[in-house]
Amino acid sequence: MAVRHYTLDFNVSTAVDPTSTVSGLLSIFHEQELTETIHDTAGHGYLATFVGKNGRFVVLRVHSHGLVTVDLQCYEEDDIAQLDNLLNALENKLKVLLNGNITRIKKLPALLRGAKVDRYWPTADGRLIEYDIDKVVYEEDSEYQNIKILHSQQYGNILVLDGDVNLAESDSAYTRAITGSGKENYAGKEVLILGGGDGGILAELVKQKPKMITMVEISFTELLLVIDGCKKYMRKTCGDILDNLKGDCYQILIQDCVPLLKKYVQEGRTFDYVINDLTAIPISTSPEEDSTWEFLRLILDLSIQVLHPSGKYFTQGNSANLTEALNLFEERLGRLSCPVDFRKEVVCVPSYLEQWVFYTAWKK
Amino acid sequence: MAVRHYTLDFNVSTAVDPTSTVSGLLSIFHEQELTETIHDTAGHGYLATFVGKNGRFVVLRVHSHGLVTVDLQCYEEDDIAQLDNLLNALENKLKVLLNGNITRIKKLPALLRGAKVDRYWPTADGRLIEYDIDKVVYEEDSEYQNIKILHSQQYGNILVLDGDVNLAESDSAYTRAITGSGKENYAGKEVLILGGGDGGILAELVKQKPKMITMVEISFTELLLVIDGCKKYMRKTCGDILDNLKGDCYQILIQDCVPLLKKYVQEGRTFDYVINDLTAIPISTSPEEDSTWEFLRLILDLSIQVLHPSGKYFTQGNSANLTEALNLFEERLGRLSCPVDFRKEVVCVPSYLEQWVFYTAWKK
Repeated sequence: MAVRHYTLDFNVSTAVDPTSTVSGLLSIFHEQELTETIHDTAGHGYLATFVGKNGRFVVLRVHSHGLVTVDLQCYEEDDIAQLDNLLNALENKLKVLLNGNITRIKKLPALLRGAKVDRYWPTADGRLIEYDIDKVVYEEDSEYQNIKILHSQQYGNILVLDGDVNLAESDSAYTRAITGSGKENYAGKEVLILGGGDGGILAELVKQKPKMITMVEISFTELLLVIDGCKKYMRKTCGDILDNLKGDCYQILIQDCVPLLKKYVQEGRTFDYVINDLTAIPISTSPEEDSTWEFLRLILDLSIQVLHPSGKYFTQGNSANLTEALNLFEERLGRLSCPVDFRKEVVCVPSYLEQWVFYTAWKK
Repeated sequence: MAVRHYTLDFNVSTAVDPTSTVSGLLSIFHEQELTETIHDTAGHGYLATFVGKNGRFVVLRVHSHGLVTVDLQCYEEDDIAQLDNLLNALENKLKVLLNGNITRIKKLPALLRGAKVDRYWPTADGRLIEYDIDKVVYEEDSEYQNIKILHSQQYGNILVLDGDVNLAESDSAYTRAITGSGKENYAGKEVLILGGGDGGILAELVKQKPKMITMVEISFTELLLVIDGCKKYMRKTCGDILDNLKGDCYQILIQDCVPLLKKYVQEGRTFDYVINDLTAIPISTSPEEDSTWEFLRLILDLSIQVLHPSGKYFTQGNSANLTEALNLFEERLGRLSCPVDFRKEVVCVPSYLEQWVFYTAWKK
């Protein structure tokens, strides 16, 4: 029982006369057996609503200053051809009525509201985006988050954690960027991966014959659910690497990474590479009110402490558009207990539909 | 005078009792001085509209089968904090009223309707996409098309032709793909570029010291407008290549490419590379009703005829999701007067927000 919501908007260079415009459209509404109600807007233009058969509902607004908007809502299973005809009739009539003064006509793809499969996953910078998602292939709630794997025709299966697009099978660009953009040699190296439950980084790096990769996931439930979903439905990303928690040159540990990092610091253990795949930089720019910032600072500080003097720390940032949050992160990078230099890179990760920033940091 | 249109949708696992739900919400509407009208939907659930101060308008629908939708329209300059409060109050109250049966709550980023700068440019496969566009930097109508250059924070300036996103300053991936993905050596070669008015391909290829690049644009007006806009506002893409119509190893011809290709065929002239940057594959899958298909077939046939026996023909296809149109194109590739083999590649062009197919064809 989803609703299809069409919008049709005319921008006009002059004020629009509601009387002539509306009376010009009424015959179209009446033909479609739509019953009209006119509303008093207290001086904010003309507003009428129309209710028709099959639950159809239309809103017509002639705004005072050069904008006419039409909304048409109907049920998904309604006769689409008939509704297209109605919209086209309204568009054509408005073209005649507003002739010569139209500066823009905008008919957006219909919003599908309440559909079984949700196709709208806004970007990190808050824009409305419709994905080509046709199926939910996996969904579980762990104690930490909601885990979904959705199928997209062009991106393959997409891992969505708590509503954020995390990684799709098309996104080798993400894995490449967070492992140093192909410029590193992992052969014989000690590597620590924080998070990375989708297995993409691990699967890529084992190919390069490192000495040992230690990957840390927070809990067994998390592991079971994220890894379970990924190893079934994201094989293009993780291959068979998640079939075993241990291999010749890797081990997956199930524990909170903070005490583990503290233990490594105490033991003086170091890594050639630390790859933080836990979380993006928080969007909120009030660190004092957001515990994620404190968590991020803690992980960052401990990670740099376990980094070999010539080692490298890789992490994702966030959307290139979230400049405030990125600046805040960079400022924090400058205030660690152990001084670091850093560089950043902007990368196009196909399924993100926004440019994404990645950071590399190393000890000064 | 733009309108901000918020939507808030609740999916519920059981039928919703309209009476208790609506009466639970009324106090919120009344607090906001919204005047209610109840509409008769002839058995299609509960529908009420509310008109408030400053032209605010709310639609509340309790659909019969497990869906509650709220629309809130207001003017762009209205008090956003107050409207956020209203929406949050409605969301929180609905959470209580529908408690235990909610399967999804969806609050999309508000649609901005009729805004001065239009941010909505649907993908080729028809999905709703909001870009981060903040400025129109260039707009002209040529005799063939509407030419816009829009500014995006993350993609730089974007060339939009007749409402289709054509190329952004971020899109070196497009140029790379349509010139053979970095696997070709253009040094000393004869190259023909059809279209390419943004200068991206030309600017890239001259760096490789070809013998001669001939680029053909259709008309002087077109050249003036597209090239004029690009050389001013797409410098990251075209560099200074469009400042002159002629250089050491390139010439830009202003003419219709069909008679030119026919002349080349007659003269027996051949090229090592022909790059067709004129147009994507038509979306319509009724070639008999769409002259673009016939144009495409003609260009394709002539291009292969002027191709050196060991030469390569490069062109873009279209969105990877438009499988029917792509199949139709491939079928046509198999029926040219001169038999060809081809391969395709799917590429992520950053500003397209969809996966894009590119073709390479060569003589059998």
